[in-house]
Amino acid sequence: MLQAVAKTLSVASTTSSASRGVLVCFRSYCKKTTTKLRVSEVLSGAELGASVKVQGWVRSVRPQKANVFLHVNDGSSLQSLQVVAGAELNDPLLTFGSAVEVTGTVKKSPHKKQPVELEAAQIHIVGECNPVDFPFKIKERHGLEYIRQFPHLRCRTNAFSSLLRIRSEAAAAIHLYFKDNGFVQINTPIITSNDCEGAGELFQVEPSSPEHVEDENFFSVPAFLSVSGQLHLEVMSGAFSRVYTFGPTFRAENSQSRRHLAEFYMVEAEVSFTKSLEDLTKVMEDMFRSATEHVLAHCVEDVDLFHKHVTPGHRDTVDAMLKKSFPTITYTEAIDILNRSSETFVFQTDWGCDLKTEHEKYLVKHCGNIPVFVTDYPYDLKPFYARDNLDHPQHTAAAVDLLVPGVGELCGGSLREERLGLLRARLEEAGLEDTYSWYLDLRRFGSVPHGGFGLGFERYLQCILGVDNIKDVIPFPRFSHSCLL
Amino acid sequence: MLQAVAKTLSVASTTSSASRGVLVCFRSYCKKTTTKLRVSEVLSGAELGASVKVQGWVRSVRPQKANVFLHVNDGSSLQSLQVVAGAELNDPLLTFGSAVEVTGTVKKSPHKKQPVELEAAQIHIVGECNPVDFPFKIKERHGLEYIRQFPHLRCRTNAFSSLLRIRSEAAAAIHLYFKDNGFVQINTPIITSNDCEGAGELFQVEPSSPEHVEDENFFSVPAFLSVSGQLHLEVMSGAFSRVYTFGPTFRAENSQSRRHLAEFYMVEAEVSFTKSLEDLTKVMEDMFRSATEHVLAHCVEDVDLFHKHVTPGHRDTVDAMLKKSFPTITYTEAIDILNRSSETFVFQTDWGCDLKTEHEKYLVKHCGNIPVFVTDYPYDLKPFYARDNLDHPQHTAAAVDLLVPGVGELCGGSLREERLGLLRARLEEAGLEDTYSWYLDLRRFGSVPHGGFGLGFERYLQCILGVDNIKDVIPFPRFSHSCLL
Repeated sequence: MLQAVAKTLSVASTTSSASRGVLVCFRSYCKKTTTKLRVSEVLSGAELGASVKVQGWVRSVRPQKANVFLHVNDGSSLQSLQVVAGAELNDPLLTFGSAVEVTGTVKKSPHKKQPVELEAAQIHIVGECNPVDFPFKIKERHGLEYIRQFPHLRCRTNAFSSLLRIRSEAAAAIHLYFKDNGFVQINTPIITSNDCEGAGELFQVEPSSPEHVEDENFFSVPAFLSVSGQLHLEVMSGAFSRVYTFGPTFRAENSQSRRHLAEFYMVEAEVSFTKSLEDLTKVMEDMFRSATEHVLAHCVEDVDLFHKHVTPGHRDTVDAMLKKSFPTITYTEAIDILNRSSETFVFQTDWGCDLKTEHEKYLVKHCGNIPVFVTDYPYDLKPFYARDNLDHPQHTAAAVDLLVPGVGELCGGSLREERLGLLRARLEEAGLEDTYSWYLDLRRFGSVPHGGFGLGFERYLQCILGVDNIKDVIPFPRFSHSCLL
Repeated sequence: MLQAVAKTLSVASTTSSASRGVLVCFRSYCKKTTTKLRVSEVLSGAELGASVKVQGWVRSVRPQKANVFLHVNDGSSLQSLQVVAGAELNDPLLTFGSAVEVTGTVKKSPHKKQPVELEAAQIHIVGECNPVDFPFKIKERHGLEYIRQFPHLRCRTNAFSSLLRIRSEAAAAIHLYFKDNGFVQINTPIITSNDCEGAGELFQVEPSSPEHVEDENFFSVPAFLSVSGQLHLEVMSGAFSRVYTFGPTFRAENSQSRRHLAEFYMVEAEVSFTKSLEDLTKVMEDMFRSATEHVLAHCVEDVDLFHKHVTPGHRDTVDAMLKKSFPTITYTEAIDILNRSSETFVFQTDWGCDLKTEHEKYLVKHCGNIPVFVTDYPYDLKPFYARDNLDHPQHTAAAVDLLVPGVGELCGGSLREERLGLLRARLEEAGLEDTYSWYLDLRRFGSVPHGGFGLGFERYLQCILGVDNIKDVIPFPRFSHSCLL
């Protein structure tokens, strides 16, 4: 009977060219029901002794005399599943990068590295992969810079698939924090007729096909990609006491630096009925802490890969960040610290100047290499919406930045000028009263003291993982002269 | 002693012009600690007897001889908190739309409508609202079309604040579904050098300031706003068995219809190792069901507002959708049904034609006014990536649409052509082999059968709420000739 089955299978595998990759051994015969499982489910060890089917990509092949050992990965975890197959199941098409479907029995592994392994009864090669043409090589650890050249394939490396799982979990953690704290998520628009910051580096949007140019503009007004959802969140601050948005924002910055992207993700929150900047710094610190603790708890292996192999020692930095509460210094104190320091900076620091990355990094180190809030920046440095502290002679606005190790500025926020008279005067001065008449309306009708902040999501990932180049923490980086795929 | 306190407060309220809105009564004196609570927290009844502070906007004012009754809303729930204050706390500035801070004691309400009310000890008017200029009037129920004229204020109405809470909860429910089912979230790019569908209606992106035009293009290639994240998700399908994206997509469609927006949100998922369209329809149906049940359970009052006041009777439609499993018919069967029907359609239905909204709506009704899957569309109607069913004489592709009551097409999906030879031939035929050489690479290296779908998030909200115009389910609608704020 066993022989008969073997014969049938053997005939099938030689007559049909489509089944070239189907290799079956006797063991399969005795199994009853086969459950399709993900690699992470098998690795959890719950299905010991069960007959399962696993689908994924081959991450290593090690043929030996009696057996062939494979590692199969399906993206559900960093760890691959070790598959042990009889030598008769080996096939030249079982190469690094090929896709397979393996049926077999979950067994306790004799090796310490993995709790279980899969004893293969059948291996089906789903998709071949020519190892000569495939840009990643078996057993080689390719650097982040090398794999960046292959935006359509780099997710198949350990490092980048870990990054993507971490990014997904971090985004979920941030949504969770806001939901647990009563924030309503608002999809602020991507296309906008506003120029939030008054800063120039905008992308303009127009239909690509000429049939639309009958009008001067598709939207009747010039339309841009959003640089911030803040003003639209402020609209919502007139009806909700807590709102947030988490989406893409854009800057047409002609930069190929390690710190800038043309398209990046921002988390922005706005809180109504604020009394002081502390109402905001509390949210920033709580969110940072909550998201980071979540990621460290839920992505242990993936984070370890970065902390051990990409930036050795970075875990200590992260642990230190979470241990102490974040100190707050004023801008004026920051300038004093910088001026008293023995460090030589490229840019001088007189009261009134903007802080550069070199200054931000110094301040972080000075405060013990943990995140630090800098508050009350010079009024003249801040956009029209920042709340006037009405102080003098050093005139400041109630603005705050969160500076973090390795990155510098991670968050920027402020109380917003809710006082109609002061806001109108500042807009008039800038000749923007008409443009922002709707924004003034928000202060005409039931205005409340409010404030908010934005966090650069990619910089956040760089900060907790220790990744130096921002292009390595986003699936498809866009920057000047580069828009691959 | 009480008199002394009253005197102090009275002095304060007459000497400082800033405290014009601060009105205090004796009751406040006896309280010890005051907790700041959100309206929804007070309404939950947990803080009965406690001294609390509530901040929000006045939704109604009813002065009587001895008392004044207010309803205060802070966006945390549709229901407002009834505030009862002594007549001495009344003030002409306590108007509809004004912002207030009320301190008082939580009491059991004598009225059935609300479980508790707040007995005010102090009312501070935080922000005035001139009822003559404010476009919404007390006690009037403004229609969705009227409030749409005020994109910066409409969140202050009951209907639109309910919509925004529902939208936020529905988005959370969708993320939750995917997370619970092992999908990794991928932020597919907004700016892309691809034109996914080959369809023309694209927005092009260029820096707005002239200093960037030194090059022909900022990105060195023409760059567009994404119409779909599908191709980028397919990249990830070579390393993860389940991925999804949920973000904005764009069409430069010159339409002001009730069904189209220039900027709208899509949920897109891609599943690897698919065997048939059923692997996809299962995910679509499960997601629809799971998200809808979540929203109905978590937004009871908000959904009721729509089902009772905006589209009376719509709840029955929604309940019916959830009761039965969604039927599947093939395109060929659909054409038969349409051709046999006694209905007069504007457009004829010969095999090979695209289905119009009138046909989709008829098919939904024909199937019992519940969502219905239509599968296996004519091959020539579908884009290059749709998997060839290799059938004849009626040549079809493994594509599927989900049609739903009231809306028509809600989801569109397909198995993707994973066979290198067939895909290359089709791309060659279209002259696109070079453009999509990276896409062909995905089939060269470890290709697996996979498929996915997209769901229009706004159409989903229309479907479950019964909202007729798509502009009423998105915070800031963008369409031709309109990009307000």
